Amino acid sequence: MVKIVGIGGSLRPESYSQQALNLAALRVEALGVQVEVLDLREMNLPFCNGEDEYPDYPDVERLRNAVKQADGLILATPEYHGSLSGVLKNALDLMSFEQLSDKVAGLISVLGGQSNSNALNDLRVIMRWVHGWVIPEQIAIGQVGKAFGPDGKLLDEKVSERFDQFAQSLVENTRKLRSAA
Amino acid sequence: MVKIVGIGGSLRPESYSQQALNLAALRVEALGVQVEVLDLREMNLPFCNGEDEYPDYPDVERLRNAVKQADGLILATPEYHGSLSGVLKNALDLMSFEQLSDKVAGLISVLGGQSNSNALNDLRVIMRWVHGWVIPEQIAIGQVGKAFGPDGKLLDEKVSERFDQFAQSLVENTRKLRSAA
Amino acid sequence: MVKIVGIGGSLRPESYSQQALNLAALRVEALGVQVEVLDLREMNLPFCNGEDEYPDYPDVERLRNAVKQADGLILATPEYHGSLSGVLKNALDLMSFEQLSDKVAGLISVLGGQSNSNALNDLRVIMRWVHGWVIPEQIAIGQVGKAFGPDGKLLDEKVSERFDQFAQSLVENTRKLRSAA
Amino acid sequence: MVKIVGIGGSLRPESYSQQALNLAALRVEALGVQVEVLDLREMNLPFCNGEDEYPDYPDVERLRNAVKQADGLILATPEYHGSLSGVLKNALDLMSFEQLSDKVAGLISVLGGQSNSNALNDLRVIMRWVHGWVIPEQIAIGQVGKAFGPDGKLLDEKVSERFDQFAQSLVENTRKLRSAA
Repeated sequence: MVKIVGIGGSLRPESYSQQALNLAALRVEALGVQVEVLDLREMNLPFCNGEDEYPDYPDVERLRNAVKQADGLILATPEYHGSLSGVLKNALDLMSFEQLSDKVAGLISVLGGQSNSNALNDLRVIMRWVHGWVIPEQIAIGQVGKAFGPDGKLLDEKVSERFDQFAQSLVENTRKLRSAA
Repeated sequence: MVKIVGIGGSLRPESYSQQALNLAALRVEALGVQVEVLDLREMNLPFCNGEDEYPDYPDVERLRNAVKQADGLILATPEYHGSLSGVLKNALDLMSFEQLSDKVAGLISVLGGQSNSNALNDLRVIMRWVHGWVIPEQIAIGQVGKAFGPDGKLLDEKVSERFDQFAQSLVENTRKLRSAA
Repeated sequence: MVKIVGIGGSLRPESYSQQALNLAALRVEALGVQVEVLDLREMNLPFCNGEDEYPDYPDVERLRNAVKQADGLILATPEYHGSLSGVLKNALDLMSFEQLSDKVAGLISVLGGQSNSNALNDLRVIMRWVHGWVIPEQIAIGQVGKAFGPDGKLLDEKVSERFDQFAQSLVENTRKLRSAA
Repeated sequence: MVKIVGIGGSLRPESYSQQALNLAALRVEALGVQVEVLDLREMNLPFCNGEDEYPDYPDVERLRNAVKQADGLILATPEYHGSLSGVLKNALDLMSFEQLSDKVAGLISVLGGQSNSNALNDLRVIMRWVHGWVIPEQIAIGQVGKAFGPDGKLLDEKVSERFDQFAQSLVENTRKLRSAA
């Protein structure tokens, strides 16, 4: 059975990217797939110092194990300074080919201002570098402060449809790419 | 049966990128797949002017038909000025979602100087924009003037192995991604 | 006296990028600078084939001379497939360090859909590759079909202000960067 | 008098990027400019959580003040997974326009494998996003394990010359761009 792990790149208490990630995770789960969402706000991760092991930080192993056992990933990030957050990049830096290779990722970014695909482009090249796949259906939510209603639902029907296509593609293509040749 | 179309982005008579493309095409063909290589030096394509039709240039239809019927693509480009060639970008501009969506591409760049992945990164984002896939195995040949022997074979065994992995991945993953869900 | 050359990357008869380029040129000119706008629709340029000389195409020399004598550049492109047009890239491919090094460029892109900085990012890296400068003030006009009024003026005051800042920065910083050390 | 601040993006005890940064700083200093190198290994910075203030981390203010008072920056990063380190991105995320706008940056990356400009490209777009300048002379050191002799000097004369050009350009162009209009 296909397993998807979601990682959000924001430590903000009211993080919109985590909200978007949770929403994507629900839609992926509704397609009959096992989903685990990692909330970096609840994990204690160190800055990557190039070492292989971080014995004082058991959450490094928790992160690595979850991703290693996954077939697919949802990576959600706020766009900070025209790229992914340092928080998310650092979490990726704590892993390597062993965890990330051959995984199939779907990418989401949120932005206070005008939507833009800079963070998604950088993430796409990063995932290729670790020999992963990225689905074509990516989501960039601009003006994110106006994107969600008080009930946490997406206000724009078109954006909501993009989440459906995103979930559909992630599940379907993870199944295909992870199947035996 | 899976069909792969190769397009080379150089009009140089002694083009190294076309040479690399031909070599990749042979390895892909050896895996039991139908391959057609388009040589832009032998086609008469116009500059894209934003129009849908180019009645004076029948090669536009030839290009579009070949790509439309393909499952996968090999795109090979010289790296000019830190990006793909205008020649290749223009050929892509003459097509759109109808031809390019859902296709699985493998990317090759050649460069006189130190190897680099700028052209490949730009092509990766371009292929995503038209809703295509790009395999993780990409090939950037630096110092390309020293890459091929007089018999046209690759002199560096490691580079040759990259071509094998490239062909293997392109064929295997095109089959997977183009299979019925 | 500072000289700026503008190049537009669209061959569409009703090109919005050329319209945006002309508007930027007017604002630059109003700051007391000499401006020449090259309209690629009125020039006969070949595809770059890697040769140094194109004796059958005198417009290659015209392009090269104009850019060589310039201090600064305005590069305007439609965003095609998430990057600059092949038409503009090919025009840049016909030049090299001799024309482009040390020049100070300002970048503009136009797009039918949601605005985005992909074409501008690629152009920024390309201009760096030829050892040029790019000003931070870049302009990406989304929904460009609704950007201009029937009189050719920009309908959105904020976009118009961006053109003012763009022109101001291009002129001021070209002066600074091109001054004797 | 022009002031340059250097920031290194590695926490490795034997960091090559910090070594490259120190070397660049020395050459910049030799040109009569004030240089301060920040070593993130000796600073206690938090992960950015989107807040403006980090009262428990006085080093945030130290970082911000140093950069705010600078005219130019040297940003040095290991290339991790085809991009800058999360450590460096996080340090940049802790700052904003107030510190970074209008600053003139020079970029350095180091890499264990084949040199590549991915991290530099991402940093270039990031610096533009915060309205900064980046000099065209960038340095990417591949095979960095073989780059330095036991005395800490660069073994390759050509790479050493690139450091000279880098320092020269950073100082000269920071002076120009930061001068009164």
